[in-house]
Amino acid sequence: MSNSSCLAIVLAAGLGTRMRSALPKVMHEIGGLPLVGHVLNSVVHAGADKVAVVVGPEMAKLEEHVAIRVPHATCHVQVDRLGTAHAVKAAEEAYKAASDHVLVLFGDTPLVKADTLHRLRERLSGGADVVVLGFEADDPFGYGRLLESDGELVAIREEKEATDEERRVTLCNAGIMAFKGSALPDLIAEIKNDNAKGEYYLTDAVEVARSKGMRVVSELADEKEVQGINNRSQLASCEAVFQQVQRETFMENGVTLQAPETVYFSWDTEIDPDVVVEPNVVFGPGVHVDSGARIRAFSHLEKAHVSADATVGPYARLRPGADIGEGAHIGNFVEIKNAKVESGAKVNHLSYIGDARVGAKSNIGAGTITCNYDGYLKHHTDIGAGSFIGSDSVLVAPLTLGDGAFVAAGSVVTSDVPENALAIGRGQQVNKEGRAKVMREMLAAAKASRKG
Amino acid sequence: MSNSSCLAIVLAAGLGTRMRSALPKVMHEIGGLPLVGHVLNSVVHAGADKVAVVVGPEMAKLEEHVAIRVPHATCHVQVDRLGTAHAVKAAEEAYKAASDHVLVLFGDTPLVKADTLHRLRERLSGGADVVVLGFEADDPFGYGRLLESDGELVAIREEKEATDEERRVTLCNAGIMAFKGSALPDLIAEIKNDNAKGEYYLTDAVEVARSKGMRVVSELADEKEVQGINNRSQLASCEAVFQQVQRETFMENGVTLQAPETVYFSWDTEIDPDVVVEPNVVFGPGVHVDSGARIRAFSHLEKAHVSADATVGPYARLRPGADIGEGAHIGNFVEIKNAKVESGAKVNHLSYIGDARVGAKSNIGAGTITCNYDGYLKHHTDIGAGSFIGSDSVLVAPLTLGDGAFVAAGSVVTSDVPENALAIGRGQQVNKEGRAKVMREMLAAAKASRKG
Amino acid sequence: MSNSSCLAIVLAAGLGTRMRSALPKVMHEIGGLPLVGHVLNSVVHAGADKVAVVVGPEMAKLEEHVAIRVPHATCHVQVDRLGTAHAVKAAEEAYKAASDHVLVLFGDTPLVKADTLHRLRERLSGGADVVVLGFEADDPFGYGRLLESDGELVAIREEKEATDEERRVTLCNAGIMAFKGSALPDLIAEIKNDNAKGEYYLTDAVEVARSKGMRVVSELADEKEVQGINNRSQLASCEAVFQQVQRETFMENGVTLQAPETVYFSWDTEIDPDVVVEPNVVFGPGVHVDSGARIRAFSHLEKAHVSADATVGPYARLRPGADIGEGAHIGNFVEIKNAKVESGAKVNHLSYIGDARVGAKSNIGAGTITCNYDGYLKHHTDIGAGSFIGSDSVLVAPLTLGDGAFVAAGSVVTSDVPENALAIGRGQQVNKEGRAKVMREMLAAAKASRKG
Repeated sequence: MSNSSCLAIVLAAGLGTRMRSALPKVMHEIGGLPLVGHVLNSVVHAGADKVAVVVGPEMAKLEEHVAIRVPHATCHVQVDRLGTAHAVKAAEEAYKAASDHVLVLFGDTPLVKADTLHRLRERLSGGADVVVLGFEADDPFGYGRLLESDGELVAIREEKEATDEERRVTLCNAGIMAFKGSALPDLIAEIKNDNAKGEYYLTDAVEVARSKGMRVVSELADEKEVQGINNRSQLASCEAVFQQVQRETFMENGVTLQAPETVYFSWDTEIDPDVVVEPNVVFGPGVHVDSGARIRAFSHLEKAHVSADATVGPYARLRPGADIGEGAHIGNFVEIKNAKVESGAKVNHLSYIGDARVGAKSNIGAGTITCNYDGYLKHHTDIGAGSFIGSDSVLVAPLTLGDGAFVAAGSVVTSDVPENALAIGRGQQVNKEGRAKVMREMLAAAKASRKG
Repeated sequence: MSNSSCLAIVLAAGLGTRMRSALPKVMHEIGGLPLVGHVLNSVVHAGADKVAVVVGPEMAKLEEHVAIRVPHATCHVQVDRLGTAHAVKAAEEAYKAASDHVLVLFGDTPLVKADTLHRLRERLSGGADVVVLGFEADDPFGYGRLLESDGELVAIREEKEATDEERRVTLCNAGIMAFKGSALPDLIAEIKNDNAKGEYYLTDAVEVARSKGMRVVSELADEKEVQGINNRSQLASCEAVFQQVQRETFMENGVTLQAPETVYFSWDTEIDPDVVVEPNVVFGPGVHVDSGARIRAFSHLEKAHVSADATVGPYARLRPGADIGEGAHIGNFVEIKNAKVESGAKVNHLSYIGDARVGAKSNIGAGTITCNYDGYLKHHTDIGAGSFIGSDSVLVAPLTLGDGAFVAAGSVVTSDVPENALAIGRGQQVNKEGRAKVMREMLAAAKASRKG
Repeated sequence: MSNSSCLAIVLAAGLGTRMRSALPKVMHEIGGLPLVGHVLNSVVHAGADKVAVVVGPEMAKLEEHVAIRVPHATCHVQVDRLGTAHAVKAAEEAYKAASDHVLVLFGDTPLVKADTLHRLRERLSGGADVVVLGFEADDPFGYGRLLESDGELVAIREEKEATDEERRVTLCNAGIMAFKGSALPDLIAEIKNDNAKGEYYLTDAVEVARSKGMRVVSELADEKEVQGINNRSQLASCEAVFQQVQRETFMENGVTLQAPETVYFSWDTEIDPDVVVEPNVVFGPGVHVDSGARIRAFSHLEKAHVSADATVGPYARLRPGADIGEGAHIGNFVEIKNAKVESGAKVNHLSYIGDARVGAKSNIGAGTITCNYDGYLKHHTDIGAGSFIGSDSVLVAPLTLGDGAFVAAGSVVTSDVPENALAIGRGQQVNKEGRAKVMREMLAAAKASRKG
């Protein structure tokens, strides 16, 4: 099979009206990635060297997403919606050029594994002309049944056309199919629309293939893996399956999840062994956590890297570009964006560090804020190693603090601070004796008069 | 039925000792509303024009709550607790005045739907004199069984008095009943207390009615809907049912809940289609979110309005009176209270905006705080459109900033800022060369001497 | 039994390779306490006056933990790992000295209850020589079966050696055993390693004891209670059981958990009746909450005390040493560490109060920060009763503010403030008319040139 070429056709033109959404159905997300993105990942991992996506008219965002994920994929617009075989035909330009294998998948069935697609392809390599993916249904009602005989697939029987005996069959049609590339064009061409709705159904390819003496077989998948999505409730339930798989996988790999059911992963989250994740943590896309780090409760990470033995949270938010060094500490109510916090540095409380470098072993006091935006441009703050930034300081970028700099609490720092220098920028304290008592009397009087 | 008058009697005098609480049982909350409030909502929606609530002695808070929710409701104190029929009798003044229909409900059974009560009333309109609400119990043990014959309810049989055959009946008594208004006074009057506990049981009305040749029937509800609450565990389990219903309803209506099981709604939450709600969001009472908005993880909203395409969170807290304009951004660790953040404005980090207006397209820097309280009175801050408030600024109210005002980072602003003016109010930075090194040596020495 | 002496031998030498962790298996945590700590708690509560823990080589952290939890416990290193009986023999020094009862437990089976161990000891007091703890398995496959006859335990049969009939037995071996102290040394000495792996199995003590005419019996535990831990998934599932028990117990005791499944407790959490806990709260170790307090959503507490009627959260973090007085308020994005917030005081927004006292009825404005750390030492801040700290103030410790002190918003306070005095320490505001407009034009030009 290693030499076989493979085209994957992903049907993604559906509007998904039951989603009640302005967004094309396959652009809704699971684990932070659009549904169609999951399918594209699977077909690429299954070795598809050509990918054709059938989209609806005016689905620019979908086409953009496809181009980002699989740059060499082609998009084909299905203008009218006349059934699944009609949708495949929209990609005729792609399947006309011969591939050894052709996979047909649905953009709204995101959990299908590359491994399962591999098995479909192996059946083709083993001599089958058409392979239909099936699953053993807990409750087969409503699904098309796969009727087999002597190891071959005889027919796909819809619920309403099934006999009582056929209805007792629990092997159901998952929709996904694989074809010998040489067979597909004729099969599609011969499918007719002489049915109630006047549509062209891809499942009819089974009958056409058998009438031509081709070998049609089925291959089994897990029911959860081929779950399709038609409404938000099914979207949530697919998301739950996805998260469950992620959680189990991380635990098997040696990650401690104290309350796995409260931790949400993205499709591309990477966590090394011996990381501890406390309850209620959300991993957005693009996160890598190194071994020995601890992600504390209520933390939120996106496009961030946490090095070995670092501690993040509780209530820490790492935004894109946050790079937390070895053994560094990011504490509560702290936001880090596009900033490198070097090894052993501490940003423990109520701070915003954006567009910055915090040098190794520096200590950033509570309430410190990097003022990185002037309303027009973003500027960089560079804090040298071993610096001490007093609480509630404002660092107005562009700004450089040398190694070992010390900023007095409550300072507004607007110009660079040399190495080992102390910067102070704050008002001088004055105490007015007895004045608080007078003020309280005045304020109480004001309150009384406002009420009166 | 549209012409029928209806009295609802809600029994709410129970102490609920198994709750182990100082609060009357029916004042414990589900979805942010006391149990009795849910029942009151249902009876009002079912068309009850008169509402009588039977309360215990010294339940002022409960009476207050009833008055707020249904101003025309009457409260009736049941001094001794001599059974459910005795409780109904406490509301005699209410049912003496003729109503066509009388519903009797329990304040600790909060999930009963208006639609179910409607069906009880339809049975009365259709000729029944007494209707008993029943449910098919998963495990009927311990419940009174509804014994029927020829479509009429013959008896309610308690577990301990039931024959083996009767125990196999799974149709159980939900407690809720409906009466022809003209029949109720006599039925209540004739119920006796010749039983072990010497109490007056409303269920005996069935027997009395039948002895008078009246027509008694049952009507079916879902078991979850008639779940009563006697302890905190049942309270939690009713809350779970309530939340599940809310989540499903929102998803059907086109709201994306990424992790539905982590989102908590109040009884009156309103969310439009195509809103995305990330994991771990709590909606307190009085929230409305418009279409296209995104509520990010770990957000908490109460009595707030979020306009179309706005983004809230992660870690945003909207308190009562927060009104977030179209496309506005409220970011992490930000608290908004009684403030209008106009369209396109941004409050992205670590800020408290209270008693204020933030004009359209203004940018509020990280760590900005409106100082709205002087210990006695609250004051207003008005920020004009297109303003830029530098990070870590304090705006001391009462205060007005004109359109296009600019506040330098770290300023304390105590007087008004004209349109397009720049306000600066901060200390001047001074750098003391080499001083940080000296300080570190002194501090290290102090630490060593403290240890020594 | 009250007079009986009891030795508990806890086997904790396993490496737990399936945990994929550098940490010894029994040092992984459930409810914030290492697994072995749970076992140690149970044996102490079951009346063990001597405790011997069998550890592996180079498990210093484990030995430290044992010493902290049970100072009089002894640790015994098992160098080679030649089976459970071999492990027990490592503690020979402990069991040589006669105890009436000897319990043998596993450090990776943390949920066993003291009450269950009590029952084992009662069986010894009642005449048994050896007692084996068993459980009724939902699915017995893979477990050793307890084969009984006439009320005595005849054998423990491993899955692979069992007949078909024996495999149908659902009473399984939980591993935990109890011995008459006088019997144990000989039993251990006589166990042989003539088996496939050449190991010494403690379960063989049953056969040896019976061959000596001793009385061997079984005692029953709940399956959940004797769940062992071999990988992170089982760790998570034990944690889930532990949390479920905690939640149920608190609700029975009159605590309202609005969403029990989202609240995480530690092994030693103490909460009084009529406390309300909102969704998504994490209780780290050492927390006590008094009656009438409310812990709001997204709060995180460790080693903290919350007094009656206080409100904490949402998004409040109480760190070790936080002591919140009666009726006090701790609001959102507030961190309290090693500080006493006295009765009626308020710290409502975005503050860090560390190493401090906040006097009764004081009001701490939004954004207030105690600057308690100079990079070397921690210093104390003392705020008198009835003080008012204006928003965004910095209190640089060591510092004392007298009763009724008033700090103007945005001040940096570096020296003490007398009783009833007003302290101001901030820059003077200057408005520069029209300057914002000029700046915007300059910044826009800079942005354009950077792009160009």
